[in-house]
Amino acid sequence: MSPYVRIHFKIDDQKKWTSSAISKAMAQEIESGRAPKGARLPPVRLIQHQLGVAKQTVARAYEDLQQRGLVINKPRLGFYAAGSEKANSSSRQTMSAPAIQTIDATLPPSFQKAQKSTSDDIFLGSVFVDNDLLPRQQMQKCFRSVLQTPGLHSMYDMQGYRPLRKAIAKRLQARGILAHPDHIVITTGSQQALDLSVRALSQKSIATENPAYGVGKLLFEMNQMTVTGLPIDPFAGIDLKNWEKIISSQRPAALYLTSNFQNPTGYTYTSSEIASILEFANAYNFGIIEDDWGSDMLSFSEFRTPIRALAGDNVLYLNSFTKKLLPSLRIGYVVGNEKSIAALLAAKRVSSLGNPTLIEVALFEFLDRGYFDQHLKKLQTALDERYRVCLNLLGTLMPDSVRWTQPGGGPILWLELPKHINLQELATATAKQRVFLHLGTQSWFFGKPHLHGVTIGFAQNSIAKLQKGLDVLACEIRKRL
Amino acid sequence: MSPYVRIHFKIDDQKKWTSSAISKAMAQEIESGRAPKGARLPPVRLIQHQLGVAKQTVARAYEDLQQRGLVINKPRLGFYAAGSEKANSSSRQTMSAPAIQTIDATLPPSFQKAQKSTSDDIFLGSVFVDNDLLPRQQMQKCFRSVLQTPGLHSMYDMQGYRPLRKAIAKRLQARGILAHPDHIVITTGSQQALDLSVRALSQKSIATENPAYGVGKLLFEMNQMTVTGLPIDPFAGIDLKNWEKIISSQRPAALYLTSNFQNPTGYTYTSSEIASILEFANAYNFGIIEDDWGSDMLSFSEFRTPIRALAGDNVLYLNSFTKKLLPSLRIGYVVGNEKSIAALLAAKRVSSLGNPTLIEVALFEFLDRGYFDQHLKKLQTALDERYRVCLNLLGTLMPDSVRWTQPGGGPILWLELPKHINLQELATATAKQRVFLHLGTQSWFFGKPHLHGVTIGFAQNSIAKLQKGLDVLACEIRKRL
Repeated sequence: MSPYVRIHFKIDDQKKWTSSAISKAMAQEIESGRAPKGARLPPVRLIQHQLGVAKQTVARAYEDLQQRGLVINKPRLGFYAAGSEKANSSSRQTMSAPAIQTIDATLPPSFQKAQKSTSDDIFLGSVFVDNDLLPRQQMQKCFRSVLQTPGLHSMYDMQGYRPLRKAIAKRLQARGILAHPDHIVITTGSQQALDLSVRALSQKSIATENPAYGVGKLLFEMNQMTVTGLPIDPFAGIDLKNWEKIISSQRPAALYLTSNFQNPTGYTYTSSEIASILEFANAYNFGIIEDDWGSDMLSFSEFRTPIRALAGDNVLYLNSFTKKLLPSLRIGYVVGNEKSIAALLAAKRVSSLGNPTLIEVALFEFLDRGYFDQHLKKLQTALDERYRVCLNLLGTLMPDSVRWTQPGGGPILWLELPKHINLQELATATAKQRVFLHLGTQSWFFGKPHLHGVTIGFAQNSIAKLQKGLDVLACEIRKRL
Repeated sequence: MSPYVRIHFKIDDQKKWTSSAISKAMAQEIESGRAPKGARLPPVRLIQHQLGVAKQTVARAYEDLQQRGLVINKPRLGFYAAGSEKANSSSRQTMSAPAIQTIDATLPPSFQKAQKSTSDDIFLGSVFVDNDLLPRQQMQKCFRSVLQTPGLHSMYDMQGYRPLRKAIAKRLQARGILAHPDHIVITTGSQQALDLSVRALSQKSIATENPAYGVGKLLFEMNQMTVTGLPIDPFAGIDLKNWEKIISSQRPAALYLTSNFQNPTGYTYTSSEIASILEFANAYNFGIIEDDWGSDMLSFSEFRTPIRALAGDNVLYLNSFTKKLLPSLRIGYVVGNEKSIAALLAAKRVSSLGNPTLIEVALFEFLDRGYFDQHLKKLQTALDERYRVCLNLLGTLMPDSVRWTQPGGGPILWLELPKHINLQELATATAKQRVFLHLGTQSWFFGKPHLHGVTIGFAQNSIAKLQKGLDVLACEIRKRL
């Protein structure tokens, strides 16, 4: 049964409502469009109750409105506004609002193509981890458990469920990061963590890797920040002299960088590169936002020391459970310090107030039961195998003019192609064979790209899919040599 | 068991690793701080495996490191970096990062006071609905059901779970709003809906009610928008001449307004006020962002025609399930049109990419089973009763110099006090009796407040709590007359 529109009867205790007064008031509401065409009108007993009149008085008003064509009586459903000539012409014209002036934006490619994808499709450029490697069953067990006890919470904690923040602090401590639970903010994936960090900055200029994490770059641009690209070469590493030159001329207020397996290149900084970047930070006085999404994807439970562990709590540290656990959970976090936490919390407050509690409680349960560490062990073994297979396949299938990086593990590597191959045309050819490349040329690079290649996501693809996907790709590359 | 830090052995196929070479490489990592003090070091078998050497070779290296005081062997736990003089002095000094420059922000009051609240506390100014009126059991049933079938989704839909968007579109249609599911974006409460709307605007000037929804006002200010306040008087309504004067001089690009039960005043625009506002919109060319959070809280399943239903799809329409269903779910939505949807989706993408799928799927189940409509009926009856009781209590308890609004239902009303009463001092006095007022003086008003009062949240408080809370408040007011 539909709800019904409220009719504004101007109630005056002195006045006795007649059926013609009721009819007149309702006709006004319908003709003005305030009771729009098709809206359900209040039943007789409700108006009777509201105005303190006899049932017959209201019934007569409705009869009158029906005769005037303003109301339709649908048997067993009730009375509905029919609209009127007047409502459909004059009032409709005045009752309008100007278009809201919005920014220029194009829908991301996934929204533009309507094509259905099947489970046989191969997303060779994906940075996600294969669903089959994710612990859905164990996570479901945790959800069931917390629905039982303590059950759904009514409220949310703006900063994030405190036991989860404590559990995260403990995990970080085992990786050399001192983080107080009060300085951690739980976020919707690492994307909200990055958004909060950006909102917390007092100066709107930032530097990041070139090629960059695309949605990060888009975030900076949409915020009208000054954005500087610092080129990385996933084969040769970074040209520190060039970085210093760019940094000293652009003077960014902050540097956003990925400490493990940068998206899209799969590159990881060497220890001495990190040391130099920290020297630059001190010399040119910029803050560091470290995105460690690629952590916990190394073999044998190893971790690389995060920059935050090396350089202290001035570094804003971002991480997420999206890729490594289950993307649909959308949980990440940002770690500030005593000084930055107020700004991060103010940012969280205006951006979403708080996030769904159930997800945070269930994730705590998952960590607390030791499921995450068990899962990571299996995940790392599986990623290792796929990494080795991927390298072997590349060695067997690819022509000599194609190069690829050896990131040592993780989810992705970079495949560099001969410059004369048209990437867009190549992607179209492989897509016909249901092998999809991710071309972020425009969204990744600052200006003219210094790399000419694609990401290979071995974490996303089973060995069978890697085999087929790389075979199709290698064939299409060879055709174009 | 702790994870262990990766040691960067510069692996060279030609080179044979001796125990002194291993020891030297590890000492470097420890002394540089890259293997920080307290970090677990890789077990013997792992290094053995990585470098292809004998077990004894690695064991000897560890012995050497222990003798030099760089490594501690914890029985049954493994080897740990002990740090060194060097690591604790020089390298610690260079390995640092400057403080990130953040905006000035103060923690919200709830973070500042550490006091524990008990279930007997009375939050008289709360705009939330009493937990006891919320359908936790039924919602839990839906979560259990979707965990069974289809189970946890692996991925998320950036725009929001499509069946949920369709269900929302259908609900809106019954209230006169034509909304295509493709033009709806699911958000983290109405706060993210507002944030996306603001991000989507191409011009950063906005007008809103004075007093304003505090976190909305804060959002605008943190985004460095030009913000204009349009005074409302919850007793006399709005002074349209004054509004036009302000609008014509300030020329905001958009107007953010609440169509039902404005927070904090509980005010609802009359039909003719809405008509005038739409005339202003056309005359001064500003867009409208309608926040309808207060909808579905009227008695007898009535609805007031939303502005979007009157003025068409140029109006950005925001609503949420937070207050009416369960705050911990954090689900809201924004409805755009064919033109604005690309900007809203770009905003969603950079802000959180997508939100937790499980919550969206369970909410769909809740709507689909008809639980929400059943719940609203009960909720509305309960709110009606509390509203009537609240009005009676105010009539009995309050002195003549105190006035209050009669919003006709909903969750809140406005209580206006004599100007000479110090609100802060009053709040402190009632807080001692565990009756908490919400004073948003600075966060609600633009400049000097034209109202002098507090919100009374009758939806939050049981009849017993209303009785006690209003009694305490009335006593403290009388003392100050």
